[in-house]
Order: sequence, then C-alpha cells, then structure tokens
Amino acid sequence: MSSTTPTPTTNGGGAGAGAPPKKHQYDPVFTDSVIAATGPKASPRMRQVMASLIRHVHDFARENDITVAEWMQGVEMLNWAGQMSNDRRNETQLLCDVIGLESLVDEITSKLLVGADADYETTKSAILGPFFRKDTPPTENDASIIKNLPPDAEVAYMHGVVSDAATGTPLAGVTVDVWQCSTNGLYEQQDPEQTEFNLRGKFTTDENGYYGLYCIRPVPYPVPYDGPAGKLLQLLDRHPYRPAHIHIMAGNDKYTPLVTQIFDRKTQYLENDSVFAVKDDLVVDFKPITGHSKASLELEYNIRLAAMKPRA
Amino acid sequence: MSSTTPTPTTNGGGAGAGAPPKKHQYDPVFTDSVIAATGPKASPRMRQVMASLIRHVHDFARENDITVAEWMQGVEMLNWAGQMSNDRRNETQLLCDVIGLESLVDEITSKLLVGADADYETTKSAILGPFFRKDTPPTENDASIIKNLPPDAEVAYMHGVVSDAATGTPLAGVTVDVWQCSTNGLYEQQDPEQTEFNLRGKFTTDENGYYGLYCIRPVPYPVPYDGPAGKLLQLLDRHPYRPAHIHIMAGNDKYTPLVTQIFDRKTQYLENDSVFAVKDDLVVDFKPITGHSKASLELEYNIRLAAMKPRA
Repeated sequence: MSSTTPTPTTNGGGAGAGAPPKKHQYDPVFTDSVIAATGPKASPRMRQVMASLIRHVHDFARENDITVAEWMQGVEMLNWAGQMSNDRRNETQLLCDVIGLESLVDEITSKLLVGADADYETTKSAILGPFFRKDTPPTENDASIIKNLPPDAEVAYMHGVVSDAATGTPLAGVTVDVWQCSTNGLYEQQDPEQTEFNLRGKFTTDENGYYGLYCIRPVPYPVPYDGPAGKLLQLLDRHPYRPAHIHIMAGNDKYTPLVTQIFDRKTQYLENDSVFAVKDDLVVDFKPITGHSKASLELEYNIRLAAMKPRA
Repeated sequence: MSSTTPTPTTNGGGAGAGAPPKKHQYDPVFTDSVIAATGPKASPRMRQVMASLIRHVHDFARENDITVAEWMQGVEMLNWAGQMSNDRRNETQLLCDVIGLESLVDEITSKLLVGADADYETTKSAILGPFFRKDTPPTENDASIIKNLPPDAEVAYMHGVVSDAATGTPLAGVTVDVWQCSTNGLYEQQDPEQTEFNLRGKFTTDENGYYGLYCIRPVPYPVPYDGPAGKLLQLLDRHPYRPAHIHIMAGNDKYTPLVTQIFDRKTQYLENDSVFAVKDDLVVDFKPITGHSKASLELEYNIRLAAMKPRA
C-alpha cells in the first residue's frame, strides 16, 4: 500500500513544508498530552507499551482521517468479538490471527526465549490457536489418539526424538501434547459427534527421547466464519482456510515449552494460510508405509528444544 | 516517551546500519505478506485502512517486543470489554476514550465535515459519550429538565441562540438535545432512583433561533471504574474523573448535527479530564442571577452550526 506509508509524526501526514491541507492540521500536542497523563506509579513496562500503543493508534487515526462512524464500526466489531468469546472460543484472538498478530508475537516471543546470542537452532514455533486443552489426559507411547475414525481418514504413525537443541542429547521425560481436527474440519470440543479428547494425546518421551503415536492425516479447514473475524475476512476479500496441520506442544520443567504446528507438504493453502502460521521448517512429509498393521502413512518429526535460561 | 519513538520500518527498530541486535531481526517481509493477502474485491477504503492498521499494529509489536503473554492480556481485556457492554454501557468505547481515541476521531470528523476551505468557525465539538438517548421526548422551550431535584443541586437557566456559522443568521427549527448527570454523578439510565428521562430534554429553536431550559449546575463524576477501562486507568496510575459538563447535540436536516459538551469554568479536572474532551472554546461561566423565581444561576450558550454541504 504505497499510498499509506506510515509517518512517525504526531501531526499526521503532510505537515511541514509548504502549506499542508487544513484537514491534516489536527491538534499537534494532543497525543503527547494523552501520554503525559500517565501517573508516576505506572510500571516502566506499562508506561512504555501504552505510550507506544497510544502513539500508533492516534497516528493511524490521523493518517487515515478515521471518522467517528468508522471508529464506532470498529468498537462494535470488538464488542461483538467479546460477546462471542467463551471458554471454547476466543473471537478476539481470532481477529488478531487474521491480521497476523498472533503469528508475529509468537515469532517475537520465541526469539526472546532462545536469546539473541544463541548459536543453535531450535524447532520453529507456530501459534497455539484457540483449540488447545490443558486437561488432556496422559497417553502411553505408541497409543492411538483416534477415538472416532472417520471413513475418509488415513491413519499415520507419527514419531520422533526430542533433543537438546544446543547439545543434540536426546531428552527423556519431555511432555509432547498433540492435537488435530477430524476430517470434517472440527476439533472435538466444536463437534458434539466426537468423543471427548478425540484426536488429542499427551505423551512423554522415553529414555531415548522417543515419542510415538497414531493419528490421522490432517485436512484443511476454515477458521470460524460466523463472527467478526469471518466478517473481517469477507471485507478483505479473503478465504478462511488453514492448511492441513497437526498441533504440538513440547517441554518440561527444564526446557522452554515449544508451541508449534506441522504442515502437510501436499496440503492446499500452504502458501496462503488465513492466519499466517506456516514456516518452511514446519512443512513435513507423510510417507506411505506398507506392512504396518495400524497405519498406511509414516511421519517422522524430531523436535529440538532450548534449555531454560537460569534466572538472572 | 523518547525511548519509544515509532519508526516506519517494517523490520522493527535498529535494522540497517551496523550490526543490529539479533532480537530485532524479525521476518522483514511478514507484514507486507499479511497486507498482500487482501483480495481484489475489498473496497478501496477497507484496503487502505486495514493496510495501515496492520502496519501500525505490527510495528507496535516489534518495537516493544510484545510477547505472547502480553498480547493475551490485551486479548482478555478486549473480551472483558465486549462481555461488559450492552445497550446501556459500552466498555470498548470507554477504553478508547481513556486513550483519547474518541476525542481524536471527533476532532477529525468535525474538521472533515466543515471542510478544509471554510473561512468561518463553528462551535467546537466534543465526544458523544455513552449516555445519549435517541428516544428523549420533545420538550417546550423554557421548560425544566429536572424531574428529580437533589437537595444539593443549584438550578440554572440555560439559554442561547443557534445561528448559521457562515452568515450569523439565527436558525429556527433546530433540535437541541441536552443531557447531564445528577449530583450523585449518575445519569438516569445508570440510577434506578431517578425518573426516566430525568435531566434530559429535546428542545426546538423558535423563529429567533432561541432555545431555553432549566437544568442543574453539573458536577464532576468518575467514568465507570469496575471494568477494563477502570483497570487500564489503574495500571496507568490515572484518576477516572471527568470535569463537570453538560452534553449538547444540535442540528436539523439542513445543518450538520453538532455533538459537544460545555464545561463549568470552576470545575475540578478541567486540566486533566480522564477522557480528554475539554477544549478552551467549550468552557463556560455559570453567572449568579437574582430575582429569578426558578433559578439562581444563568448560563448563556450560543451555538454556531455549519450548513450541510450539497452532495457532490
């Protein structure tokens, strides 16, 4: 959008040389006065973050001449998002997802956790999304997470080794949470037809760092489309689909939990994920296997974790 | 906040000259890729506004290294705001108010409505706030809007002339809506002890442009403090009070509706309104009057409206 390059001025675009259009002559000290209202007992982090947020929001309004009516449309969309959200659904999170914000703060967080001076690579992270459940019960290695097998599903043997990203040492006792949707595109908590905890498992690596399970080959699905995030996607002329993926969370008390998603290299929407979560390192291959009684596909996925930094 | 000056770069601060800290080396094409996902059928306005919003939100996140945990605190605050909002309360609007956004879009809108080339001054606008009611019944001129008179109230005779800002001609048939809170700081819809439409009136100017009514001298009051806007004010170490004011909305089918507030020159909080709505032109004097049977104070307030521009 070459016509909307942001400027860092407080007074909107156009001020300065020559005679700027009168409509950009908004009160030049207003933003500073709002920021200056912050009291002495605000925390340094709160002071920094809110000053920056206020400046960006005000610059956004001035640069685009946002009217009261347009602002109120935004207010109503956010109220709608809050009113749609509950313990099974987070529509404000989804609004952030469709503008790439969760993916961006995920990138920021994972780089901060590993540290600026690390000379090794951990497995890349991806967004948690709204469908994780903390209360998934533990499962034995090599068990199946499939409680309801849809007729159109392909079963995959997924396995790998979890290791220390810096040393390569396999790690025992690491929890590996795995969750995915069924072939109808719904996670079990969205779908009354699925048994509770269907397609979810919480595994623990053995002494060789091994984890293993049976799951299904994932399918693309649309993010919920009946709320403000769906409305925003329509207004932006965008589709709501996510490429086929499996969610993973891995960590323990010594290793920073990794939250990620792995994507089927053959899936549609790999190049245009509606929530911008795909990274090259997270694209995986489901390989045909024969002579295996429980699965027709194999997926090997090894995970490299960063040890937690000692607290300063 | 000298340490948080925004930069217009896509790659966060510090990229470019020398060796930037690794933690700022976030994906330099990510924001452009999110903006580029907008489809060809999005309206030009939507395309412009959302591209700018996405760029500002992403720059904000990168410049401040916003973590997933911090972002989720913001998401939860917005969900809370939506869940608290209903037809009597708009907490997302109030969140915007305490960061000055409603006051800013009000300034932008009023300047756009009058036009960049106007050589006259209209009465300044101020924010609508959440307490206006569209269904206030019409009232005869010189009637009282006081249905419940608190013992600590001072009664004022408020009157003035509405005129065309460009020509000075008095305007007949202009609707003048007036609303204010009682001396306990509550508007009638917030307070079960007040009669419906207490301290609200909808007047119409006579052939001389005159409107007149009896109201009370306004008092300062805190904005609602039990939700996310109150929480944000606490985190910013700020008070929730608004200076004493009376709301006015004036207009008709030929004159752009003016939304404003007038502030008592003697009120507390004139210099630090919690929602940043005070403008010098809107500060008024309540003058003692004697020998008047219904009021001890007089407030003269004349209003200058802009004629609607013919549609292009």
